[in-house]
Amino acid sequence: MQIRTATTALYDDFKTKMQKIADVQMASAVLGWDQETYLPEKGAGFRGQQITTLSSIAHELATETALGDLLRELRQRDDLDAIAHRNVDLAFEDYEKHLKYPAPFVSAMSQATNACYHAWIKARKANDYQLFAPELASMVSLKKQEADLLGYTTHPYNALLNEYEKGATVNMLDTIFGEVKTAMTDLLRQISARPQVSKALLHKTYPKKLQWQFGMHLLQAMGFDLLAGRQDISEHPFTTSFNPKDVRVTTRVDEQDFGNMTWSCIHEGGHALYEQGLPTSQYGLPCGEAASLGIHESQSRLWENNIGRSKDFWHFHYPTLQALFPENLQGHSLTEFYHAINQVQPSLIRTEADELTYHSHIMIRYEIEKALIDGSLTVKDLSATWNQYYQQFLGVSVPSDTQGVLQDIHWSHGSFGYFPTYSLGSFYAAQFMAAAKRQLPGLDAQIHQGNYTRLLQWLRQEIHEHGRFYTSNELCKKVTGETLAFKYFLSYAQEKYREIYR
Amino acid sequence: MQIRTATTALYDDFKTKMQKIADVQMASAVLGWDQETYLPEKGAGFRGQQITTLSSIAHELATETALGDLLRELRQRDDLDAIAHRNVDLAFEDYEKHLKYPAPFVSAMSQATNACYHAWIKARKANDYQLFAPELASMVSLKKQEADLLGYTTHPYNALLNEYEKGATVNMLDTIFGEVKTAMTDLLRQISARPQVSKALLHKTYPKKLQWQFGMHLLQAMGFDLLAGRQDISEHPFTTSFNPKDVRVTTRVDEQDFGNMTWSCIHEGGHALYEQGLPTSQYGLPCGEAASLGIHESQSRLWENNIGRSKDFWHFHYPTLQALFPENLQGHSLTEFYHAINQVQPSLIRTEADELTYHSHIMIRYEIEKALIDGSLTVKDLSATWNQYYQQFLGVSVPSDTQGVLQDIHWSHGSFGYFPTYSLGSFYAAQFMAAAKRQLPGLDAQIHQGNYTRLLQWLRQEIHEHGRFYTSNELCKKVTGETLAFKYFLSYAQEKYREIYR
Repeated sequence: MQIRTATTALYDDFKTKMQKIADVQMASAVLGWDQETYLPEKGAGFRGQQITTLSSIAHELATETALGDLLRELRQRDDLDAIAHRNVDLAFEDYEKHLKYPAPFVSAMSQATNACYHAWIKARKANDYQLFAPELASMVSLKKQEADLLGYTTHPYNALLNEYEKGATVNMLDTIFGEVKTAMTDLLRQISARPQVSKALLHKTYPKKLQWQFGMHLLQAMGFDLLAGRQDISEHPFTTSFNPKDVRVTTRVDEQDFGNMTWSCIHEGGHALYEQGLPTSQYGLPCGEAASLGIHESQSRLWENNIGRSKDFWHFHYPTLQALFPENLQGHSLTEFYHAINQVQPSLIRTEADELTYHSHIMIRYEIEKALIDGSLTVKDLSATWNQYYQQFLGVSVPSDTQGVLQDIHWSHGSFGYFPTYSLGSFYAAQFMAAAKRQLPGLDAQIHQGNYTRLLQWLRQEIHEHGRFYTSNELCKKVTGETLAFKYFLSYAQEKYREIYR
Repeated sequence: MQIRTATTALYDDFKTKMQKIADVQMASAVLGWDQETYLPEKGAGFRGQQITTLSSIAHELATETALGDLLRELRQRDDLDAIAHRNVDLAFEDYEKHLKYPAPFVSAMSQATNACYHAWIKARKANDYQLFAPELASMVSLKKQEADLLGYTTHPYNALLNEYEKGATVNMLDTIFGEVKTAMTDLLRQISARPQVSKALLHKTYPKKLQWQFGMHLLQAMGFDLLAGRQDISEHPFTTSFNPKDVRVTTRVDEQDFGNMTWSCIHEGGHALYEQGLPTSQYGLPCGEAASLGIHESQSRLWENNIGRSKDFWHFHYPTLQALFPENLQGHSLTEFYHAINQVQPSLIRTEADELTYHSHIMIRYEIEKALIDGSLTVKDLSATWNQYYQQFLGVSVPSDTQGVLQDIHWSHGSFGYFPTYSLGSFYAAQFMAAAKRQLPGLDAQIHQGNYTRLLQWLRQEIHEHGRFYTSNELCKKVTGETLAFKYFLSYAQEKYREIYR
């Protein structure tokens, strides 16, 4: 007679294995953070090798037969609680997905990513897309293979989308971006017909040290726990988390552009609050992870735009800012400042776009990715197509590859299917914010007073604490009563910009 | 017929395995560095767990049967070059040593270290040795077991000494420390009979920022490559290296004690120059590691004392220092400053001791460790014995456990056998420096001019580049023509202090 191992013992075993994998992945993340912040220049080569080794160890552990066996056994148990059950299901899903990648493919992808990234750097320096094209072509070919390995219905791009936003499809995005395009064209047309606002105010000289001080002040005001996280300087702002008790954001400071630091700081702060709000008890387990990239982005965008570009927010913080930079801001009213930070103006660079035209940048990338993956666009024609889309969607002429098709790092990393989550994040954010306003009486007044405690508590309870327990779809429905709908972003934008541009 | 694998293929396989282990260990070292410099307070728990996981993965990899088989096969090959041969021999020696530790012992030691460290922290805070004693007793008992596991001849302490300084024995140390004691007693007696020098100069207020700037200046002057390393602030200064292209030192700055930052900076800089000088081609292999702790310490002490407390060194750097701190140093001569930084004065705290009485602190710890390990001293009597030795060796009364037996972290970490390498390092340093002066004509004049290029080149060629190829004994003989001899330190000290104290 075989003795049946108790479910709790099996589950503990599962947790131990998963936490070991997480420890290795998180160690790799620490090395990654260090690489972007403090690594001495000559250390880059060995560092790359160290990160590769940790990734391969994590991959070995995540695809161990013993883990698969354990998961299959656990899936047959009916005495798991809801969270444990969900952890097992999601872990099994991840396990099976990891197995879909044969070792030669993983290795080819790793090499291609490295080559592609360096080609991108080189091409940017030379301002010449053609230096990037051959490596990008190999990357696109590998991404098509990846779509086949993962499997899909309807469109191969769905397989890649699914990696970043489970359940997102070309159908869904075509529909939502269709609505976006119609509504935005109309809104942008109205705005362009009105007297324009100026953002010259943001481009005076703002000394670095004071900007840094103000950024730290904002992070703390938002509720970012500096005993469980920190901020440093890096070339490109990012958030990384090694567990909810150690969440790190970075920013950059441009003395001639006050907005650069401020909204990157609030944006990454929003990501960081999500990470600090994930349940520590679920460390290493799916329910200890973010629901999806779209939901992650909803948290950063909610803080960056819905809160951080609102008049209520600056009603409270503008006096502090004026006191820090009296020479730049004395005599400039809150309204003037509020208009400056919300200027709408079609432009070339995605990361510097306002919150309306931003989505045109995303739609261009979405159309291009879809077409590259289904083969209707070839890599060699990409630069021309890019420039044509920028004319068509935004009415701007692209003067150079560096300010055009070479501006984003994503494709050089093989991140196809990632861009749409940026727009989804904004739309989720507007929908969540509308729900918060319905559910939290007096929220506007609290924000007006610089008090985000209740809002953060609500985000924690409604979103952060659940980790991956709900899919983004389920989560959206649970929190707002319906699945993702563009109308919330639209009415938020209409109301806000009609007031600004009258 | 079985086909014999080519030696180069076997050796490449060996290198790959060793570098994988190194990658994991180095990743763990990055996490350790981060823990001491930038880790947010609440992240400590998860960080400990992540480091433990990496250590256990490294241990698994280092004790894999396949590695042992490979090493045994390689040891039979006669077509390895000298360095490859040595790498294989040393790696096999390390492999067999790793196997001597049974898993339950490793786990017990890991738990005991954790408990012992926290008891030490607690006891220090409460200034009460008895809070530390029970955990220390468990630690000592485990160290005795470890000596048995490792095996030894003559004295169990030899097994532990061997971990830090291969070949060092109680016999050797009893002899050398016997000489030290006789010579030092005499020298200290002479010094105490002369008019004393004052170090009040060093205890004015030296602003942090300027001290930091001066420390960075010294590191660069020594030849520390800041593109392959960096300096940060931590509570206790240390050096850590992730490969020769990424070597990190830390320091601390006390505004009321200029010496604290300066000589910790030069000391760690000496360690760091050694690490930056190890051969990158040997990364992950024994010949890419330091020869021993004693040799490592020789490099830090050589820079800290033989160079960094010499009149020639300050002849060049004192004017810069005066310019940085005019209010503190204008009107104070180089001689006055030189005397201040070389004041000899028996004291309570090892890390603040001058370079002569320092060795009495080490001898006390050596006598105590020997006796704890052979059982002639019990842990409960340790505090009393400590105080008695301080009276006997240094003529000082210990007013409290915190300033006495609880001052060093080492025993709480289970580092028994480590302290003697500090003294050995000083003696090696004096012997190396004497050889350098013989072999490099004009060295004093170069130091007088702030030029350490030739000296560093010599240290690189004679010591750094060889890694663990030679044992410390062999290395000492190769570089200086004889094995370690105390007489070099003695004549260095006699000459220096007779001049200072006349």
